[in-house]
Amino acid sequence: MPFNQYCKELKGISTHKIDFLESSSIDEREVKELCLTFRSSIEQTGARREGILDIFGNIVEKCPLITGAIWSKIPFQVYLAVEECVSEFIDSLSSSGKEGILRCHPDLCGRDLTRGTLTEESQNEQSQAGLTSLNPMEREILNHLNLQYKEKFGFTFVICAKMSDKNKITQELNSRLQNDPCQELQNGIDQVKKICHLRIQDIFFHGKIPTKL
Amino acid sequence: MPFNQYCKELKGISTHKIDFLESSSIDEREVKELCLTFRSSIEQTGARREGILDIFGNIVEKCPLITGAIWSKIPFQVYLAVEECVSEFIDSLSSSGKEGILRCHPDLCGRDLTRGTLTEESQNEQSQAGLTSLNPMEREILNHLNLQYKEKFGFTFVICAKMSDKNKITQELNSRLQNDPCQELQNGIDQVKKICHLRIQDIFFHGKIPTKL
Repeated sequence: MPFNQYCKELKGISTHKIDFLESSSIDEREVKELCLTFRSSIEQTGARREGILDIFGNIVEKCPLITGAIWSKIPFQVYLAVEECVSEFIDSLSSSGKEGILRCHPDLCGRDLTRGTLTEESQNEQSQAGLTSLNPMEREILNHLNLQYKEKFGFTFVICAKMSDKNKITQELNSRLQNDPCQELQNGIDQVKKICHLRIQDIFFHGKIPTKL
Repeated sequence: MPFNQYCKELKGISTHKIDFLESSSIDEREVKELCLTFRSSIEQTGARREGILDIFGNIVEKCPLITGAIWSKIPFQVYLAVEECVSEFIDSLSSSGKEGILRCHPDLCGRDLTRGTLTEESQNEQSQAGLTSLNPMEREILNHLNLQYKEKFGFTFVICAKMSDKNKITQELNSRLQNDPCQELQNGIDQVKKICHLRIQDIFFHGKIPTKL
């Protein structure tokens, strides 16, 4: 069965996602094997609800409510379905609900990084973007921009750090500061979804178990 | 100024809440003093957003998203306003969002209690209801009923344990098992609001700082 067909047989996968996967280096056999392994590991967790919250509880930073909201709807052994359901649920929230998600995110290079109280996922993401080794000047600029951003919009600046680096992040923050609040709320949520995409991939393809909240 | 009037001057407090408070033993002067102390303690936390999530992040178990969603709307030095806003936000969620909240709650006398991974608030609540000292027979009955409940409804049985005790909890679980899913979702959410009410009171009147998630 071609990979495309395989995905379509699974639950409601949108076409652009299939295109993305087809162009990636993961082949059909590999995906099937990973899915089977993963399914059996979920079944072995015993109590299904608790197992799923253990594994997927932090795919959106500190928002297990979202995982809890979608779990009955989807076959969790299919990673694209997880992502689609998360995205739909987030889109269904009011603006204040979306703002709530952004406010659960830590500042980049902020208080939680300094205190060592980041979740493991955030720690890895910020570290990979070089934010754990800024010089004092770089740190001051970033903190200053973050503060301006929070004062203007009332929520945290969120960016998928793993797809960026410290210089791009500062540029992006500078540029996004010019946006209007509605547009910026949407930009933040788009970034949350990118982070979620990578975290789900980490679980399915690298066997990482997220922070238990 | 009579207490009633004082509350009305604050933000949109519903009448039944004022009646409840008037009939309670807290007097006006005491409330004002506590509010002032609390306001200054919030101001001292520095970064307002982070301070508020530190203090109110777990008033609904493991759902800082809810705190994040409401914080810009309310004067956090007024505890009734916090409660009203939480309640309104929860009511605005879809059924799956409400189910998500219930699924963030641990089972009573369940896995997290056994493993010692409950939040401090849950630990206190379950302990106060006598659930940490059940005999093997009582534990087995409760676990069996909990499992039946989760199989029937697909979400966790939630009850405000502090307003109950181990015998009443078992009776209530037995009786709520007979309900239809819609009614039971609403019952669970009503209990979440009662727990939230007590947690907010603990913060404002006993200075307890909830678990940082």
